[in-house]
Amino acid sequence: MKIAILPGDGIGPEITAQAVKVLNVLGESFELESADVGGAGYAAHGHPLPQGTLALAKAADAVLFGAVGDYKYDSLERALRPEQAILGLRKELGLFANLRPAILYPELAGASTLKPEVVSGLDILIIRELTGDIYFGKPRGVRECPDGPFAGQREGFDTMRYAEGEIRRIAHVAFQAARKRDRRVTSVDKANVLETFQFWRDIVTDVHKEYQDVELEHMYVDNAAMQLVRAPKKFDVIVTGNMFGDILSDAAAMLTGSIGMLPSASLDANNKGLYEPSHGSAPDIAGKGVANPLATILSAAMMLRFSLGKAEQADRIENAVKKVLAQGLRTPDIYEEGTTKVGTEQMGDAVLKALG
Amino acid sequence: MKIAILPGDGIGPEITAQAVKVLNVLGESFELESADVGGAGYAAHGHPLPQGTLALAKAADAVLFGAVGDYKYDSLERALRPEQAILGLRKELGLFANLRPAILYPELAGASTLKPEVVSGLDILIIRELTGDIYFGKPRGVRECPDGPFAGQREGFDTMRYAEGEIRRIAHVAFQAARKRDRRVTSVDKANVLETFQFWRDIVTDVHKEYQDVELEHMYVDNAAMQLVRAPKKFDVIVTGNMFGDILSDAAAMLTGSIGMLPSASLDANNKGLYEPSHGSAPDIAGKGVANPLATILSAAMMLRFSLGKAEQADRIENAVKKVLAQGLRTPDIYEEGTTKVGTEQMGDAVLKALG
Ligand SMILES: CC(C)[C@H](C(=O)O)[C@@H](O)C(=O)O
Ligand SMILES: CC(C)[C@H](C(=O)O)[C@@H](O)C(=O)O
Repeated sequence: MKIAILPGDGIGPEITAQAVKVLNVLGESFELESADVGGAGYAAHGHPLPQGTLALAKAADAVLFGAVGDYKYDSLERALRPEQAILGLRKELGLFANLRPAILYPELAGASTLKPEVVSGLDILIIRELTGDIYFGKPRGVRECPDGPFAGQREGFDTMRYAEGEIRRIAHVAFQAARKRDRRVTSVDKANVLETFQFWRDIVTDVHKEYQDVELEHMYVDNAAMQLVRAPKKFDVIVTGNMFGDILSDAAAMLTGSIGMLPSASLDANNKGLYEPSHGSAPDIAGKGVANPLATILSAAMMLRFSLGKAEQADRIENAVKKVLAQGLRTPDIYEEGTTKVGTEQMGDAVLKALG
Repeated sequence: MKIAILPGDGIGPEITAQAVKVLNVLGESFELESADVGGAGYAAHGHPLPQGTLALAKAADAVLFGAVGDYKYDSLERALRPEQAILGLRKELGLFANLRPAILYPELAGASTLKPEVVSGLDILIIRELTGDIYFGKPRGVRECPDGPFAGQREGFDTMRYAEGEIRRIAHVAFQAARKRDRRVTSVDKANVLETFQFWRDIVTDVHKEYQDVELEHMYVDNAAMQLVRAPKKFDVIVTGNMFGDILSDAAAMLTGSIGMLPSASLDANNKGLYEPSHGSAPDIAGKGVANPLATILSAAMMLRFSLGKAEQADRIENAVKKVLAQGLRTPDIYEEGTTKVGTEQMGDAVLKALG
């Protein structure tokens, strides 16, 4: 089995290196191949998603992705900026289902800005549609405003859209995921304002007929943002569109106070996937050896479970991570008094050791 | 001066009644006139925004609005549902600037789900554009998907759009508001993905040239959702579009844990405005005499300040509200042990008394 390793920018290479160490000691015969992506892709090949990188990602059984983005690429035109790599990979590989768990490890309850009783034991799964919505909808651009009080001026515009089949397939992912959890799905929309999301609500309701053992609730996105702050533990699985999912999954991750711990998976229709930490490239701490590699290591675990059919190996890694937390080892982002501060490498080594 | 009173549904009538009592004792010669809106408008006249109500709102110098919505109207077709009243009023009256303060009163710090040190003293102002964006953009609807892998299926679609003049005027509101505060504006967009919001960023940057005494920062909406949870006190004024503003302003309100305290103003180009509490119609507690009237009373204060040119009267009301909080009076939504629980009427009466 072939795994594409795309370290990217900022802390990407450091954290990916630790996950690679872990993959290498599992005793499996994975073929790992690396390529440049993001700013690193642009620097080496003139494009954030070089053709060779895309070809590797397509040929591989799974992709392990670090992070992209660095201030030094801020002045590039949009089509060449690092984040186009991740948008391009999602679209080219058909990665329509983004799974983002927001879990608060008991040892890290103090890291949250929320009161412990509100978040301790938090375990929600946000499922974000990732290849549709206003992210890719056309037409889009800047044009002359065609009507209304501002007619004749310039205006920026984009198209939000969801086709029936797009909504159906992500709804199935959500209901099936809920069956492995607490069997409750909250579908987040803005059906009271948007045609796209009234349609979304209708289709999700229809797909739900096949999952009568799962509870379905519809919630407006503004209310969902409030409920995430007020009582996040009430959620089990949240399913929503690309744009709302972008906002809510980051808010949910931040509730835990330990975004350095949170992995993510982006899957296609055949469970091939791209796996990346939920945090970004953090260029300010890049190269200092202080970044938390655990989200990337846990992303590798998700990869083993969802794309490579190695659930026991995934369990091994997840247990090893729990063990190092129990041992009191902490990178600076999750450090608290009374624990032991370690760097990126040390944390990676500790996980290797805990794997036994 | 004429004030339109639109109580609406659920707890709307109860809380509006308390604000009316307050307006009546100020010693000003306001002419107050009430009309049905929302579900109440539909029930009495067959439309959530009856023509007479709209005419009254247009004729008045300001509108005091309660809240709309009730489960019993959920099955109506969208055009007749209560929330269409508020969308219609915004559009018909040209109320493009929504001002939503998120303030945490020191006495209520415990009500927040966030740790006291993260939110105590919170005082941010969210300015949401209210008549543009994907809320009103056309074309929209359900059609046959014209292209891509789902071509031929049904799809829901909407149009996001912002014209230059629309962005300019809301940017001016934000920079001018910041001048009366800490002189910092965070403009929230998704310029890395959306053409509309790259254009938004460009125009806001241009308007900023006229306000070099105000600091301007641009932030992506997903990051803004995270920073609101991580360190909300770092914000001063946030300005954003209609859709992002809907989500972020509700999240920010919930940070305080006391959404029953938060007023809002929606202003046109001449500072005529509609004033309403940030919370909703809460049909589950309607008629029980337990709803918190303070957000509505504080909305009346905003009305006096922004639309009626009576800043001292606004100060009087705001001070009276602080006084009742200091006296330990609390409606159930903000009740804590050691304080005195009161109902809607009693709270209104306490404010009257505190006005002296
Ligand atoms: C970088 C950006 C385009 C991207 C997105 O908006 O999807 C990011 O925020 C994410 O959530 O992965
Ligand atoms: C009721 C709904 C249409 C409305 C909106 O989305 O604007 C509400 O959520 C608000 O924020 O006032």
